[in-house]
Amino acid sequence: MVKRFIIAIDLGGTNLKYALLNSSLKIKAKSLFSTKSFNNKQELIGGILDSINSFILKFNLTKSSILGVGIGVPGLVDTFKGTVHFLPNIPGWKEVGLKKILEQETSLAVFIDNDAKLMALAEHKAGSAKGYNNVLCLTLGTGVGGGLILGNSLYRGRDNAAGEVGHLPLNEHGPVCGCGSQACLEVYVGNARIIKDARKLFGSKITLEEVSRLAQYNNTKAVNFWDEVGKKLGLALCGAVNLLNLEAIVIGGGVSYAGKVLFKSVKRTILTRAMSVQAKRVNILKASLGNDAGLIGAGYLVRERLVR
Amino acid sequence: MVKRFIIAIDLGGTNLKYALLNSSLKIKAKSLFSTKSFNNKQELIGGILDSINSFILKFNLTKSSILGVGIGVPGLVDTFKGTVHFLPNIPGWKEVGLKKILEQETSLAVFIDNDAKLMALAEHKAGSAKGYNNVLCLTLGTGVGGGLILGNSLYRGRDNAAGEVGHLPLNEHGPVCGCGSQACLEVYVGNARIIKDARKLFGSKITLEEVSRLAQYNNTKAVNFWDEVGKKLGLALCGAVNLLNLEAIVIGGGVSYAGKVLFKSVKRTILTRAMSVQAKRVNILKASLGNDAGLIGAGYLVRERLVR
Repeated sequence: MVKRFIIAIDLGGTNLKYALLNSSLKIKAKSLFSTKSFNNKQELIGGILDSINSFILKFNLTKSSILGVGIGVPGLVDTFKGTVHFLPNIPGWKEVGLKKILEQETSLAVFIDNDAKLMALAEHKAGSAKGYNNVLCLTLGTGVGGGLILGNSLYRGRDNAAGEVGHLPLNEHGPVCGCGSQACLEVYVGNARIIKDARKLFGSKITLEEVSRLAQYNNTKAVNFWDEVGKKLGLALCGAVNLLNLEAIVIGGGVSYAGKVLFKSVKRTILTRAMSVQAKRVNILKASLGNDAGLIGAGYLVRERLVR
Repeated sequence: MVKRFIIAIDLGGTNLKYALLNSSLKIKAKSLFSTKSFNNKQELIGGILDSINSFILKFNLTKSSILGVGIGVPGLVDTFKGTVHFLPNIPGWKEVGLKKILEQETSLAVFIDNDAKLMALAEHKAGSAKGYNNVLCLTLGTGVGGGLILGNSLYRGRDNAAGEVGHLPLNEHGPVCGCGSQACLEVYVGNARIIKDARKLFGSKITLEEVSRLAQYNNTKAVNFWDEVGKKLGLALCGAVNLLNLEAIVIGGGVSYAGKVLFKSVKRTILTRAMSVQAKRVNILKASLGNDAGLIGAGYLVRERLVR
């Protein structure tokens, strides 16, 4: 039998990561480019094509041995047409028929989806969310992204735009958010804000990794810092918990490495502020696939669309 | 062919409403008791049995002509076992096996669910939410209840406790809520709060119906009053809109009769504060089945469980 590989691509604002997955969706090889090294949309599409071709050459693959290419992008996508509507953090991407372009260039089947949705898909199929029917997966980073598993499958909403947990309002009034609103969760717990808060407390050279390490050594200021982040995150999540009666919330992204103090604070806040049945039900879990979640999710995307 | 009737019961904190539905789920007859006229759980169960029997006697029905009995209750229910976990506004109801009790007494098939979920089911099958796949239905009254239609069917969550839109947090800190938390939507737009606000503005004898009428005549104070209620409601709904990328929000209950000013304010707030794709997508609609939604939803509940 012919081996069926999948080429997975995770396009982020910082890196363009790419991997070759085997038929069990395990990563056989992976590499990355800096996204900033591409000057415009055309060059970035060229970079995606190079990453696909690099595996074909390196492993001497025939096209028929490749099931397809899965791509996660950080923005709004029509996943069925394969059109990228726009990418807030990568300039020049508006209504790009990426699936069509890549299929013409490669003669491979190409599938595209939002990166946070692919992270949720991966955690549900192979990570911390496995076995749960109703789960919110979120990533804490520069932005706060999310994906929902409801009724045991990825929930997309009408425009594939569901899961925007970073834009749950936390107050009626508050700091302005990149989305045009104010007081969204993201403006309180996104990296930009918390690094600013951390530097006020710990000096202008501290990194979030260092604040996490201090918290692990029980430094009171650092523990209180993460406790406060957890309270804000937990309160916004109370809305999702009361509305969706979730079984689990899976938290990934850089800030999730803050460790136990953050997770405990989220759980305590939910137990205090959400309704009792819903609060007791929901498990607060750390994502288990780390930086590979997007790549593995891209693999599942291809498989779901092609194998029935 | 034998006519197949359904007996529908809508148990509320104020009234026990009951109706006979024909095979098209149209109301053939309906009546009500005051819930307060029953002194305890036993008497209230007796009242439910009386309401069932009154139709059997009045219309000279045979048991085989009745498809089943559908009941909506204002609280947490295991709809598949038919157990009422608890009813926050009716004392004495804790872990009551209502389905079993009523089936033994009547020899009819009995199905029980949460009242807000039955309202959502009815509006989706036969009301304003018809034709939409992803809808939040909510009722504005003493409490703010809700039910979600996702992927074209009723979404229950793990414990049948999903849809609690009244307990979306609107601020980090604020007035204490009946659920034990604070700053929930319900404490800002539930009847208790808005009637208090209205009386401060319009004098101690005003009713909400009168404030609605004043707004219809463009009384500035009344228009501003409903505009403010709509802002708070709209902002809490932004969370649901961003998270679920809904096609419609259907608003029912007494306060929904405030009219255009309330609906316009909700829509304007969502356009200003929710993400643009999600905000443009969602339609803000008035519920169309009014006080009968719970009864009609109870009919659909019976039909969904028995007819496949």
